[in-house]
Amino acid sequence: MNDRSPWPALEHIAYGGDYNPEQWPRETWHEDVRLMQDAGVNLVSIGIFSWALLETEEGVFDFEWLDTVIDLLHENGIAVDLATPTASPPAWFFAAHPDARVVDRDGEVLGFGSRGMVSHSAPAYRDAVVRIASALAERYGDHPAVLMWHVHNEYGVPVAEDYSPHAVAAFRDWLRERYGSLEGLNEAWGTAFWGQHYSNWEHVGAPAAAPTTVNPAQRLDFKRFSDHQLRACFIAERDAIRAHSDKPVTTNFMANQEFTTDLWAWAREVDVVSDDHYLTAADPEAHIGLAIAADLSRSVGGGRPWMLLEHSTSAVNWQPRNIAKRPGEMARNSLAHFGRGADAIMFFQWRASRSGAEKFHSAMVPHAGTDSRVWREVVQLGASLGRLAESRGSRVRADVAILWDFESFWAQSLEWRPVQDLDPRERIRAFYERLWRDGITVDFALPGADLSGYKLVVAASQYLLRNDDAANLTRYVAGGGTLVVSYFSGIVDEHDAVHAGGFMAPLREVLGCDVEEFLPLRTGSSAAVDYAAGDGTSHRLDADEWADDLRITSAAVRGTYAEGPGTGKPAITRNEHGRGTGWYVSTRLDADALETVMGDVYADAGLAPAGLPEGVEAVARSGEAGDYLTLVNHSDADAEVPVDGVDLLTGAATGGTLQLGAGGTAVVRLAR
Amino acid sequence: MNDRSPWPALEHIAYGGDYNPEQWPRETWHEDVRLMQDAGVNLVSIGIFSWALLETEEGVFDFEWLDTVIDLLHENGIAVDLATPTASPPAWFFAAHPDARVVDRDGEVLGFGSRGMVSHSAPAYRDAVVRIASALAERYGDHPAVLMWHVHNEYGVPVAEDYSPHAVAAFRDWLRERYGSLEGLNEAWGTAFWGQHYSNWEHVGAPAAAPTTVNPAQRLDFKRFSDHQLRACFIAERDAIRAHSDKPVTTNFMANQEFTTDLWAWAREVDVVSDDHYLTAADPEAHIGLAIAADLSRSVGGGRPWMLLEHSTSAVNWQPRNIAKRPGEMARNSLAHFGRGADAIMFFQWRASRSGAEKFHSAMVPHAGTDSRVWREVVQLGASLGRLAESRGSRVRADVAILWDFESFWAQSLEWRPVQDLDPRERIRAFYERLWRDGITVDFALPGADLSGYKLVVAASQYLLRNDDAANLTRYVAGGGTLVVSYFSGIVDEHDAVHAGGFMAPLREVLGCDVEEFLPLRTGSSAAVDYAAGDGTSHRLDADEWADDLRITSAAVRGTYAEGPGTGKPAITRNEHGRGTGWYVSTRLDADALETVMGDVYADAGLAPAGLPEGVEAVARSGEAGDYLTLVNHSDADAEVPVDGVDLLTGAATGGTLQLGAGGTAVVRLAR
Amino acid sequence: MNDRSPWPALEHIAYGGDYNPEQWPRETWHEDVRLMQDAGVNLVSIGIFSWALLETEEGVFDFEWLDTVIDLLHENGIAVDLATPTASPPAWFFAAHPDARVVDRDGEVLGFGSRGMVSHSAPAYRDAVVRIASALAERYGDHPAVLMWHVHNEYGVPVAEDYSPHAVAAFRDWLRERYGSLEGLNEAWGTAFWGQHYSNWEHVGAPAAAPTTVNPAQRLDFKRFSDHQLRACFIAERDAIRAHSDKPVTTNFMANQEFTTDLWAWAREVDVVSDDHYLTAADPEAHIGLAIAADLSRSVGGGRPWMLLEHSTSAVNWQPRNIAKRPGEMARNSLAHFGRGADAIMFFQWRASRSGAEKFHSAMVPHAGTDSRVWREVVQLGASLGRLAESRGSRVRADVAILWDFESFWAQSLEWRPVQDLDPRERIRAFYERLWRDGITVDFALPGADLSGYKLVVAASQYLLRNDDAANLTRYVAGGGTLVVSYFSGIVDEHDAVHAGGFMAPLREVLGCDVEEFLPLRTGSSAAVDYAAGDGTSHRLDADEWADDLRITSAAVRGTYAEGPGTGKPAITRNEHGRGTGWYVSTRLDADALETVMGDVYADAGLAPAGLPEGVEAVARSGEAGDYLTLVNHSDADAEVPVDGVDLLTGAATGGTLQLGAGGTAVVRLAR
Repeated sequence: MNDRSPWPALEHIAYGGDYNPEQWPRETWHEDVRLMQDAGVNLVSIGIFSWALLETEEGVFDFEWLDTVIDLLHENGIAVDLATPTASPPAWFFAAHPDARVVDRDGEVLGFGSRGMVSHSAPAYRDAVVRIASALAERYGDHPAVLMWHVHNEYGVPVAEDYSPHAVAAFRDWLRERYGSLEGLNEAWGTAFWGQHYSNWEHVGAPAAAPTTVNPAQRLDFKRFSDHQLRACFIAERDAIRAHSDKPVTTNFMANQEFTTDLWAWAREVDVVSDDHYLTAADPEAHIGLAIAADLSRSVGGGRPWMLLEHSTSAVNWQPRNIAKRPGEMARNSLAHFGRGADAIMFFQWRASRSGAEKFHSAMVPHAGTDSRVWREVVQLGASLGRLAESRGSRVRADVAILWDFESFWAQSLEWRPVQDLDPRERIRAFYERLWRDGITVDFALPGADLSGYKLVVAASQYLLRNDDAANLTRYVAGGGTLVVSYFSGIVDEHDAVHAGGFMAPLREVLGCDVEEFLPLRTGSSAAVDYAAGDGTSHRLDADEWADDLRITSAAVRGTYAEGPGTGKPAITRNEHGRGTGWYVSTRLDADALETVMGDVYADAGLAPAGLPEGVEAVARSGEAGDYLTLVNHSDADAEVPVDGVDLLTGAATGGTLQLGAGGTAVVRLAR
Repeated sequence: MNDRSPWPALEHIAYGGDYNPEQWPRETWHEDVRLMQDAGVNLVSIGIFSWALLETEEGVFDFEWLDTVIDLLHENGIAVDLATPTASPPAWFFAAHPDARVVDRDGEVLGFGSRGMVSHSAPAYRDAVVRIASALAERYGDHPAVLMWHVHNEYGVPVAEDYSPHAVAAFRDWLRERYGSLEGLNEAWGTAFWGQHYSNWEHVGAPAAAPTTVNPAQRLDFKRFSDHQLRACFIAERDAIRAHSDKPVTTNFMANQEFTTDLWAWAREVDVVSDDHYLTAADPEAHIGLAIAADLSRSVGGGRPWMLLEHSTSAVNWQPRNIAKRPGEMARNSLAHFGRGADAIMFFQWRASRSGAEKFHSAMVPHAGTDSRVWREVVQLGASLGRLAESRGSRVRADVAILWDFESFWAQSLEWRPVQDLDPRERIRAFYERLWRDGITVDFALPGADLSGYKLVVAASQYLLRNDDAANLTRYVAGGGTLVVSYFSGIVDEHDAVHAGGFMAPLREVLGCDVEEFLPLRTGSSAAVDYAAGDGTSHRLDADEWADDLRITSAAVRGTYAEGPGTGKPAITRNEHGRGTGWYVSTRLDADALETVMGDVYADAGLAPAGLPEGVEAVARSGEAGDYLTLVNHSDADAEVPVDGVDLLTGAATGGTLQLGAGGTAVVRLAR
Repeated sequence: MNDRSPWPALEHIAYGGDYNPEQWPRETWHEDVRLMQDAGVNLVSIGIFSWALLETEEGVFDFEWLDTVIDLLHENGIAVDLATPTASPPAWFFAAHPDARVVDRDGEVLGFGSRGMVSHSAPAYRDAVVRIASALAERYGDHPAVLMWHVHNEYGVPVAEDYSPHAVAAFRDWLRERYGSLEGLNEAWGTAFWGQHYSNWEHVGAPAAAPTTVNPAQRLDFKRFSDHQLRACFIAERDAIRAHSDKPVTTNFMANQEFTTDLWAWAREVDVVSDDHYLTAADPEAHIGLAIAADLSRSVGGGRPWMLLEHSTSAVNWQPRNIAKRPGEMARNSLAHFGRGADAIMFFQWRASRSGAEKFHSAMVPHAGTDSRVWREVVQLGASLGRLAESRGSRVRADVAILWDFESFWAQSLEWRPVQDLDPRERIRAFYERLWRDGITVDFALPGADLSGYKLVVAASQYLLRNDDAANLTRYVAGGGTLVVSYFSGIVDEHDAVHAGGFMAPLREVLGCDVEEFLPLRTGSSAAVDYAAGDGTSHRLDADEWADDLRITSAAVRGTYAEGPGTGKPAITRNEHGRGTGWYVSTRLDADALETVMGDVYADAGLAPAGLPEGVEAVARSGEAGDYLTLVNHSDADAEVPVDGVDLLTGAATGGTLQLGAGGTAVVRLAR
């Protein structure tokens, strides 16, 4: 963070979306502004894909149309989140700088015609983004309509890794900086394996396609480097803007959708965290994925309010089957984001595009126009958000942290793991879903973070675990914390090297066990666990995918394999360490099977399920002006929730019990 | 069409196949001719892959062997369909002109070793095809054995799109011609989306691989361009031949198999329409796909007789599992083609090749030789066709047209549609199958065609619909026609831009409704429809895949969703417009579920099912010499069909009722 | 074979593994040697991936560390299998010789970073391998620790085919040598098909990616050529070593895992046959695949003892799911290899690597260290093998040969066969499994081999069958042998050209039938067979995948199709020819369905099932010192086996009946 204003100067929850007036004739602009007012829109993002129309040839600018648009918005009371258009350089840029094209891992040169197609290591691109960002900031830095800056768009998609010669040269420099000497690199990468020792820096390259699996430490470093290059581009633009403007600068993340950028590092560079979020259409409970994304957006920003810069009013266009949102679903999604800390609810995009790759993406003004369900719900949502202004800046507090570490995800995604395609998201989702169903609010955290404020920490998928991070977790438990670790955690260090001492050695002390051998299951087979619950009852839990052959040192065995390759061996353990407790779950339990185990974990942590009606989501925000409980009923049944206060959406007092209709939402200012 | 002879000068239904004597020693040629006579072969296509043996180096010709073959055939009364060998240039051509190799969308250069591997935009290729076609026409243009010309082979396969530098330059020229100005191109392609504005023609390229989805209007134009380039090659060869010969010129289409060429445009350039057809082995009712291909071949030629230039005596070799034809199936296929307007029944190929990629493709003379089921059936078929000479030139008449528009198929096949891989063929097949089972003969037509002669027009899959074509359909109904439109039709204009006014806006008047939003279903879920039939009965119809959220203006709702995302909303509508009726079916019904709905549609159109026994196909051809009803029994049961006339295959009068054995065929000259 | 020592000078069954000391600090080396002694290790393979550390720049060598390692091993009584490190050239090699990189079939250049990434046709690579092999042989050729030479590593993986310019030029030379003239090549490749005639050697290329299926004879020759190039590299290294050392030279094969090298030809070039074998984790009966690999290793070496140079103590890392071995499974695997002729049981690798692509591969010293199941079993196995020294050099004898012909496998794997992906391994496995369950030991053999010593020969998958090999099989039967042929055999000659006379024509005489047409089945359909057994009983056998339309000449029909496309036609035939019998099975029967048929075949051959308890494997080795029956109980049940002798593993006499516990093993020196 820096000392600039961390939030755009808005009096309300921000509401609006991406606005691309250049796709429409000027007469439509006036209709747009009128409709924005009808809908309560107070902020729009503009210019995201406008480079070719702003810099018509290298160094030649045409700002007339943008002046007109910004002035028109300003006259009508709509503020501007002004974008730098650097996600999509103009055709002339590629013609002039063919060396700035991305080369993919297979050596294919990716050309013009879509978007996001540039080498982030190409000097010509670095020069060009500073030039256009500077020109925009110089011209609009003090414009009263411009409340904030939107740099680029969704860094890391559609292409995060570039294997062009520019990238290879920059990677070499980055490695030299990182390791100091070739000896350091050879050691870190373990080049003695498969005879990959380097004797000359010039021989070190990017981990492009090779006959078989490439050095995993090299690949992991290339992911770090690629993230670094993207961020260096952002910083260059941000600093160019800051030379001319003191408005906050952001860029839109894709939390829980793309893992190409380390959002913890990015969040340190932006003034305000922004996120884009789209439901996974194939998932009937996509609102749980939404909650993860929202909690992650809040967490990477250290708990500060954040902006939802894009979501959709209904279907998107780029999934295999794009499912329209049901009536009310857009409002439920929006309120869920708000409840988890968003002070801006915005959409891609204002008006549906007639042309181009995303014409079937829904918008605030759909192809069907204003005589449509979507438009009516957009107007209604604008009115609802208008009633929440007092809550701005209030914050969410969580007792539980789930570890979320992009480096570990990157490392785990490499080839030749014990089981192919073991996805870290799957385990995180399972534990998160258990906590969501139990009504317990969650933060995400790095394993090296200060965890002392949490009653419970869950390491659902922490394949890569640095020794000092393991020590941090151990101290956390010693100090009274409760830790749950799931399988395939604590396996490698920061260089994707197996920990000396064996699998999970750095957690041996805190967990009272380590892993002698992995016992993954064949596809379709299962590994039931007999679990002895804290209340003395016994449970047969369904499990699959994975088992371990554990070596117990001090842990108590709470679950034992009843089927599969681990039959008779320990499956779930509990270890008292210092003033706290470390649990280990060595197999895959789904959210249902986790219920009993987590019940015991909660007891150790001093937590309890919230007892909400099934399908009801409730999250609290607290601020100076009050405490706000956001409630979303995802079920098809009406629900009663005992809560005392005033529902800001209706203005009605709950009288102790909120009647939350099927699909309904409420934001209750709690009686104090 | 031109004023040349549109048909080869044959006295019979043409019978024969591709003949590749260069694969065999000369002694085999004499055996071939003798066997051809045994089988009743009267026409063979030769020289299709003979370039390397005819032009042995650039400009040096060796016609000796071909002279010998043609003379031998002529002496034995077998006519020749002489091919230009331009589908497979010689090795020396590629060595001399490496720039004429095809580059695929991913930038891979496709080399020599298979077939069809050339850039149709390469100047060296254009020169070479004119040279070899001229040389052949000059030498054989007046040879009495040569009755027609067979240019190239299956344009558009195996490669239709070429991204070589020659193609890119030609594409730019084609676009300049099409749009006149860059402003026109920017507008048509909607380049304001994703910042793709062009300021210089030289920056416009082919839609090659890019980081994500490429501009769909650009891709659609590239498909149009690629088709145009192929056709320009054909025209160059055709005109070179016409300079020396007045025999009819054809090229073999692949109707209903490949969608790379716009056969409506191609049919205008050939003297006679020819088609190759192969069954889809995985489809147990592949004869329905055959009927579609045959009707399409007839339709693109305006109803004129056409030639089946290739089909197979039994299995092919290039499908995942290649299923042998059952006894009698070859005859049933052949007669079905004949019944739908083919006056030539030919095969790939005469004698099975011992070597090469297609050695497992069946042939008239199989690897097993003449002591084989296949050979016996070939001889029998020759005899059968010999009895049909009087029917030559007779024509099929249809009361129903199904719209078939390659441009729409091309556009729909692009990326990022509401549902991935929504195949236009699927809906066309479902409606066609319903009509096939009801014994109603179908033409295919463009949406801009004169439809006034049809009682019923079906727009089964017309995603792209130009405004003037929509107006044509509207006029058709106003004038008394009946129109059925299936979902995802009338969505975009010729530039793949969503119609102003929303989805299906151009059909709003004729259908009395439009589409507010698409409601596609998740995989595996269903959307039943409660349908109120014209006879007052009510029916629950199975449906899936798709639903719409309709806005009704004047239509009557005939079906309502009973399940799925559209529950309670209109599913099937009927609208009276002028003197006709427009139906809309907003979900996927299979051929069975369509029965009730189409029964009501037939009633509006003044049509009725033919009442044939199940599995029996019957199509009528009418000519000056008589009316001919071709009957094919695809079922395993004997059938009786009330028909009065003489079965030409047996010479027997039916006496009012034809006994059509299981698997049997008949061609009845109807009593007048 | 040559006249050098064919076996390393060891007093015991060799026991050990790949040892990569360069991955560890020197203090670990001393621990390694101590642990090796604990485990009974007597041989280690070193230097396999050490090139970069031995030749630090071109022509500059550093042998210090290797001297130290070898001396340390020698001092501690551990012998060395010294490798040439040529499977993985150093980074400096690729920097200096970028033209030596492999180009794949799609034109992609495969770079540094994994292993095995070099063009085996590049002159610079040929020079480099001779240089390093010579340097090693010169330095260590007489070292008393070095008992043998390990050239390269697993030739043919991960890349066997190279399409670089060096490879294309070498292919052309190889073809010139093979065919003498272009006429010969045009004839062999059948270039008349699809117009591929060559008029100039310079136009002939590698069968790289093309628009559609490439000439199959060209592809088959390229596979032969690629194998030849790999072998030429081996020979160059071997001869460089022999200039300085008279120790035996080997290279490790991958029998039954990779089909890129023709092991029959390779076995002629090595002093001793070595094999690497890894279980297929997805196969619960992977020990049957192991038995095939072991029998193949023995067979290609002409029955001589062979070395298992690599297998795994537990899971590997490169399969989709890597399953740990169950307790005792490593010993069962090891004894099964021993029983089938291996006199060396070695592992990849000694100590699990902390870094690199294979860190999750099990090892003799696992990540968990010596307090582990794996280590305890490693020590136990070393002790067991130590008790088998007297059996060294004893040999296995088999009454049955299954044909195994890499050329046929290569040809069958090409595109556009009647059924896609018809895998020769599937049929071989089915027949092998039948014989394995019946306790009958099998050799593998080429179809042109002297088969007179076998009672039964099985041609389970012999798609390509040269005429002289067919004659060999025919003579074998005429002389009294029994032959079983499965479908899709005897189809093409050595140029992948269909045999003149039709499918299976070369076997018509011996089988009394040939194939008029293939009748493959649609996916999911079945083709039951009614089989009349020799004992007069009748059996309905399940069958699927394939049927034939047979033409019977002299055969007796023993099975008839009861379902599917062949209904009513012959399915299984038996033909008496000379003094023997030829069976033909025209459809796919699994090992269970084969039981009845093979029972009759055994009767013809004078064989009978061994009557072992289910899941028990028993194989006999005979030597000068005695006859040894190795018994492995793969089942979960204790078994009794009637056998009289002394179990060398326990030293106990069986007293006529061996009690073989569930999962147990024994090596019984038979009472004579």
